[in-house]
This record gives sequence, structure tokens and C-alpha cells, in this order.
Amino acid sequence: MGVGRVEIVEVGPRDGLQNESRVLPVEDKLELIARSVAAGVRRIEAVSFVNPKRVPQMAGAEEVMAGVDRHSGVAYIGLVLNRRGLDRALAAGVDEVNVAIPATDGFCVRNQGCTVQEMLAVFADIAAAAQEAGTPVSATVSTAFGCPFDGETPPARVAEIAHRVADAGAVEVAIADTIGVGVPAQVADLVERVRAVAGQAVLRCHFHNTRNTGYANALAAHAHGVRVLDSSVGGFGGCPFAPAATGNIATEDLLYMLHRSGVRTGIDQGATAAVGDWLGARLGKEPPALLGRAGAFPAP
Amino acid sequence: MGVGRVEIVEVGPRDGLQNESRVLPVEDKLELIARSVAAGVRRIEAVSFVNPKRVPQMAGAEEVMAGVDRHSGVAYIGLVLNRRGLDRALAAGVDEVNVAIPATDGFCVRNQGCTVQEMLAVFADIAAAAQEAGTPVSATVSTAFGCPFDGETPPARVAEIAHRVADAGAVEVAIADTIGVGVPAQVADLVERVRAVAGQAVLRCHFHNTRNTGYANALAAHAHGVRVLDSSVGGFGGCPFAPAATGNIATEDLLYMLHRSGVRTGIDQGATAAVGDWLGARLGKEPPALLGRAGAFPAP
Repeated sequence: MGVGRVEIVEVGPRDGLQNESRVLPVEDKLELIARSVAAGVRRIEAVSFVNPKRVPQMAGAEEVMAGVDRHSGVAYIGLVLNRRGLDRALAAGVDEVNVAIPATDGFCVRNQGCTVQEMLAVFADIAAAAQEAGTPVSATVSTAFGCPFDGETPPARVAEIAHRVADAGAVEVAIADTIGVGVPAQVADLVERVRAVAGQAVLRCHFHNTRNTGYANALAAHAHGVRVLDSSVGGFGGCPFAPAATGNIATEDLLYMLHRSGVRTGIDQGATAAVGDWLGARLGKEPPALLGRAGAFPAP
Repeated sequence: MGVGRVEIVEVGPRDGLQNESRVLPVEDKLELIARSVAAGVRRIEAVSFVNPKRVPQMAGAEEVMAGVDRHSGVAYIGLVLNRRGLDRALAAGVDEVNVAIPATDGFCVRNQGCTVQEMLAVFADIAAAAQEAGTPVSATVSTAFGCPFDGETPPARVAEIAHRVADAGAVEVAIADTIGVGVPAQVADLVERVRAVAGQAVLRCHFHNTRNTGYANALAAHAHGVRVLDSSVGGFGGCPFAPAATGNIATEDLLYMLHRSGVRTGIDQGATAAVGDWLGARLGKEPPALLGRAGAFPAP
């Protein structure tokens, strides 16, 4: 692993919360964001502009964006899945827009109500409008490592989608293991394939620890040159298709692995573990993250 | 990661059970061993010849060894920490003896009642007697990645101990992250250092997932040529010095990562996950392993 720097995109307020049974009020979301920023986070997926009737956990996106500290030097990212979401995101003044494009029709149809080909057209429309507004757009290729409906995801298909979204203007392309089935060998393969077609776009990776491979996958991504990783404080963010399973890789545990390996992130690990514990208390469940339970080493 | 083969040493009956609050009777231990063997395990740390007054979880070692299927082609390993333990192990007919030698005095004194230098002399005596009896001896260098009492473990000290035990006749030398503080960069460094001094001895690694780095560490060990890994079915095996923390890397989750990466082990992953669930029921707690909760992928 070695020295260097990795940029963490904190996705707790979005991916961490969107499948939790307890819906947090706007004030808790603002506190989660403020605590993460105070710990050192500089990019944060703060909100999702989806239909709050379909995803009640994500209601109040405009209120959240109106309440965050805009003088903090932090980039607040809004997830959008359609043009209406983009219009809301731009009106709310997000710093970046992120669009999820599933690699598999089975997931895309159920999650986003359209085929992958249709979603690529939606992305091109979103990217053009965002560019016109001067707001950077990133694309997250979801179900890139496997799909709960379609099974194995052909890696060539992931590369093809990455190529299309980079061509359409994505400044960053993420490969996402939405359901936590990926292994390091897949990471190595997909990163190389996507890098070959992504042009100037930055590579980002998004892992879930559903089957205990998430941190090994992050290690593999780093070993293959990826320098931007998503993670979720406390490790919240289960997948609705595997209700008993754990969620995103936890920011504090990722920080532990990176920092102890000599990789800098600019984020305070102890403060992040405390945010994970705080969030667990708000959600009424123990965080999947382990650092808060086991304690730092060496002891502070 | 790529193709190839890794040998798993199942340590569930020993490291998995030795810190559990519920003490399993001999019949449960025999069932655990028989189920693991039926799943394909061919080396298993079945028993520990420590003082049952000090470690009641490990009582009944002779009864366990008398009850296992000796015609299965399986190597049954007994952990010993002193000459009396070796005599018991040889009398019970173990196929291999494993000796733990801490790399730090703080741990060695508290766990084994002697200094590291004294333990090295004990090891030399054990190794000579075992060789005379024709029983192979392996050495596990514990607290190799950090010590709960002495803090950071100097890597040169781990290499020095590995050198000494290999010289004294260990046919296999393991590097063990007893308290689960290690990170992949440490694994790479320690494996290279130990390989340089271990002569003909085979390298083995033993990881705990206390801070969610265990599987990344296993990946790093494999990437640096290690082909023998310890794991514990269900992921049981907490450390008494971090009571809330999770334990050994889980055999089923390790199998998932290895198999999906094209690495063979000869062990059935689904059967192993079922053993983990069974053991959880016997111990009255949910296994830290995640495969049993999340399910296989692709679905069987």
C-alpha cells in the first residue's frame, strides 16, 4: 500500500441512510454532515434528489442543502437519477452531481424504472444540462460486480458504460459493488478495463462489505492506482436485497487501514469513529464498523 | 490474486472456542471437527494441551483426540505451550504440534508465564522431543503485528524469532496478528522479512478481523506468496483483551474471497457457512462471518 494520499467521499448521509428503517429528521442529517466535516471530510454525498414518496429516508434534500455550512471548503454532492432530480439539485446549489447508472437491466428497471440504454440517454441529458450550469457531474456504475437479479455482470459491459458516461462528460467515473459480491481479482480487472476507456475522467470505487470483501477490495483498488474511495461512517447502508447483511465499508475502518499503512486522508480517525457511534445511537443499532468497538491501535 | 491453491488450516476448535464464554462439551467439539472435515478441511487445529484449570474451554483434549476419525486423511494439530503439553499431545497421537511464541514480553509473560527468550528455549526443547517422536512441529509467532501491552512490535524482532524457531526445527512458521491490529503494508513487510530468515520452513499467516483488516491482510499475504492461511469457521475467536471485538477471519468468508478469485482450497463454501451457523447456535451468538447472513453469489 505505502505512502501517498487517498480522497474519501463520505456517503453516509446518502447511501448510509437510504435503506435504514428509521428515518432521520433533517436536523440529524445536518448534524451528521457537520460532524463528518468537523472530522475532516472534504467531499460528502449529502443528499439524494429522488422522489421522497419512494425513498422517505431521503426526504428534505432541499432543507439539508439550505442548512449545511457553505463556507467550509467542502463539496456537497447530490445524487440524481433523472432530469427533475437535476433541476432540484441545481436549484438547491449542490457543488457536484452524481448519477447512478446500473450495469444491469434487472437492477436498472427495478431501481430506476428504465433500461440501461435509456438510463445512458438520461445521463447524457443530465450531464449536458449540468455542464451548462457549471456543475461537475460524476457517474457511478452500479451493480458493476454482480446483480441480485441478473447474476454476474459482464466486465465488458461495465467498461462500455464507463466509456459512454466519460464521453458524455462525467469528470469522475465510479465502479460500485452495490450488493457487496465483489472480490479483489474483479477489482483489478474492472479498474484496468475502465481506466482504458475513461479518458480524462478520475476513477473512484464504491465498496460494500456484505461478504467481508470490502476492505480487501479497497486495498486492491488502491494497489491499482485508484485514489478516490467512497465509504460510509459507521458502515451503515445495507442493501434492500440482502436485509440481514452489513452495508458500505465503514469510513473509520477504512481510515484505520489506510493511515496505519502510511496513506494520508486528512480525516481524523478517532473523531470519525465517534461519529459512527453517534449515528448508531440515532439509528438505534450497533454500527457494523469495528474500530469503535475494538479501539485504536496503538492506544491514543 | 489469480489462480492457484491455498491450504486452509481450520482453527475454529481451538482459537475459535478458547475465549468463548460458553464452554462446549467434548461431543460438540467432535461434531464441529467432523462437520469441518466433511466440508473438506484437511488440516485442523483440533485441541490445545494447556491447563484446563486455566483455560476451561480447552478441557477434554485427550477425549477429543480419542474421538476424531483417524482414517479421514486429516492432520489433527494440537497446540502446546510447554513440555508437559507436548507429552500429552504425543500421548494423544496428534499429527502435528503447533507452538505459540509471542514476539513481545508483555504478552508472553501474561499468557505463558515466561519471557520470550525463555519461551524460545522451551520451543527448542519441544521441537527436539517432537522430532525424536517423528511428529512435525510448527511455530506461530503471536503478537507479531502489535501487542496489547507493549504496543508496536518491532518487525526485526518477529524476524529474529522466526529465524530462531526455524533453526530449532519448525517445519512451518506462522505470523499471527493475535489482537487484529495489522494492516496489509505490515503483512508485506513481515512476510518478506520472515521469508528471508526461515530457511526451508513453510510460511503460514494467522489473521484476526478485529478492526476489519483481516481479509485485506489475507489478500496481501497471498499476493506475497503465502499459501497457507489460518481461519476459524463462523469467525469466532475473540481476544480476551478486546472483549467486544470480532475474532479470527471466518473460514467461509475467506473461502468466498478466494474461490471467487479463482483460488482453489478443496473446501465447500456453502457447507462451511452451514457449520458456522451451527456453531453459532451451539455458542448462542450470531457468527461474525457474513456469508451465512448475506448468502452466496451467484445464488446456488
